Amino acid sequence: MTSSNDKLKETTVSTEHIFTGKVISLQVDTVQLPDGTEGKREIVKHPGAVAVLAVHEGRLLLVDQYRQALGRCELEIPAGKLEHGEDPMEAARRELEEETGYRCSRLSLLHSFYTSPGFADELIHLYLAEDLKAGNASPDEDEFLEIIEATFAETQQYIAEGRISDAKTILAAYIWQQKMAGDHANKGA
Amino acid sequence: MTSSNDKLKETTVSTEHIFTGKVISLQVDTVQLPDGTEGKREIVKHPGAVAVLAVHEGRLLLVDQYRQALGRCELEIPAGKLEHGEDPMEAARRELEEETGYRCSRLSLLHSFYTSPGFADELIHLYLAEDLKAGNASPDEDEFLEIIEATFAETQQYIAEGRISDAKTILAAYIWQQKMAGDHANKGA
Repeated sequence: MTSSNDKLKETTVSTEHIFTGKVISLQVDTVQLPDGTEGKREIVKHPGAVAVLAVHEGRLLLVDQYRQALGRCELEIPAGKLEHGEDPMEAARRELEEETGYRCSRLSLLHSFYTSPGFADELIHLYLAEDLKAGNASPDEDEFLEIIEATFAETQQYIAEGRISDAKTILAAYIWQQKMAGDHANKGA
Repeated sequence: MTSSNDKLKETTVSTEHIFTGKVISLQVDTVQLPDGTEGKREIVKHPGAVAVLAVHEGRLLLVDQYRQALGRCELEIPAGKLEHGEDPMEAARRELEEETGYRCSRLSLLHSFYTSPGFADELIHLYLAEDLKAGNASPDEDEFLEIIEATFAETQQYIAEGRISDAKTILAAYIWQQKMAGDHANKGA
């Protein structure tokens, strides 16, 4: 999984813990750079998260929720933090059901990706959910959200308008589009 | 650009500034939730960044660099923070040239996206660079990196191996793939 380019390696000299919160913690690492000088690296620690690409009857499941960091609501695919020690696939199943009410019988990992490797270790595991069955949502007590089911054209429109504006959801839209093109090709079109 | 779903809106009650660093700052906001109760939101402030999808003679320009948050090297498309007041398109041109040496005569915005809207306001502007001309790289003094030019198959392999593992680069690979499929279709294939 890793590359090892020793010429580029930085070595941790010391770590200063700045903050430990409910979701993230912050530390400043002093590192020795490849040329022997020292530098500072501000690092946010995050427990990791899951996100789910779920399409039901040709519509992408999205949740509308307020994002304090953005100062506005945003449409995103269902997602949430990993609980301590939780298996990512189980977390994806849980988040999908809590946020949208949908249960799925098949989940497969599409990609695991870092959101901001320059300053954070947050890793998102993005799953494809298939064989969906509708049910009742039960979000966490400090989560207020609304479910939106969007056609591909509506999804493109939301991206163009900026109502969808986060990396994982835009990536999911490209993957959805590629899957549709693949399905189309497989049907001999 | 914004949606306004008042039922979901959170209102800032107070802000506690925790840390101001070279790259990021951290604050904890107390917010009033839609049901009238209060909650805490840990928010990382970031100046924003640019990233560049640049393909030269069928090869994607990538930079290999050590990421302290990940504890290893990673291959990413050329990218960097916005300087104070800098125009994103100029920043994209600057980062591409500093990191890879390539100059481009055409840049177009593909997407602007938030990397981690749950806890950070980092917004990345992703540009497509065209009409590339090779030159000499001149990275910042605390940036140590190596340029890699990868075919599409190599890019897919790097993603499979986890050497490419960040959201913006994986997204760029999907966009590249879609552009190639579009070019192929336009040529009447």
